[in-house]
Amino acid sequence: MRYRCNWLCAILAVPVLVVTTVRADDQDTIDYRQHIMKGLNAQSAILGQIVAGAVPNDQLAQHLDALASIASTALKSFEPKVAGGESKPAVWNDWADFSKRMNEFSQKAAHAAKLAHAQGPDAAMTSMMEALTCKSCHDVYRTEKK
Amino acid sequence: MRYRCNWLCAILAVPVLVVTTVRADDQDTIDYRQHIMKGLNAQSAILGQIVAGAVPNDQLAQHLDALASIASTALKSFEPKVAGGESKPAVWNDWADFSKRMNEFSQKAAHAAKLAHAQGPDAAMTSMMEALTCKSCHDVYRTEKK
Repeated sequence: MRYRCNWLCAILAVPVLVVTTVRADDQDTIDYRQHIMKGLNAQSAILGQIVAGAVPNDQLAQHLDALASIASTALKSFEPKVAGGESKPAVWNDWADFSKRMNEFSQKAAHAAKLAHAQGPDAAMTSMMEALTCKSCHDVYRTEKK
Repeated sequence: MRYRCNWLCAILAVPVLVVTTVRADDQDTIDYRQHIMKGLNAQSAILGQIVAGAVPNDQLAQHLDALASIASTALKSFEPKVAGGESKPAVWNDWADFSKRMNEFSQKAAHAAKLAHAQGPDAAMTSMMEALTCKSCHDVYRTEKK
């Protein structure tokens, strides 16, 4: 009887486990890109503070380094086609445009960081502002959760 | 009468403006270090996902670059002695220890990043774990807001 129950339980349990595993993986994928976006958000907030003169600009190059490093990881985190989180389906439906924008963001952030190291914070300001086109992308590809 | 009121208003307004300005500056200082901590938190969460095998490790070096860049900015954000946020007074009362730990964290994060670039993600794991001593520092210097 116990043997039968074990088999029955195993048969019943397998689909549940499979579904759970798939869901967990999907949530991991969503969490990953959301952590990346949170990291970008934190650096953008700091850059905003620097532009506003609310905090000193003497660490601008390091903050741009961080922005550039995080930006360089963002596109790959969206490669698994897992809908959910705050991503609109357009991310995958318009992948060519989405990935073009992401790559441009990453390149511009790296350029601004390079400039800040080579020529100082003031020289990097224009490039930095050109890199931070967050809103134009979010308007198309993000459904912001209130 | 209007002239007098203007003067009176100006006299009354000045202390208010001064107080407001000081408070705004302090909040900016607190916001700055909190943005930095949020950035560190986001990267740590990602590193945790990588260690757990929840996401691929192929971007580990870039995430460690980001961690190291942010870590390099953290100590300076605490230099203004502005209590508040989640910082315990011990940050400034035990500055020698606090700054020693912060510098070590920054150096270890940079070392792990270097190792990940030079020898690959697996080789960087031990150094990365040694860098992430967040809790031991938070236990002493942070009052976590629930």
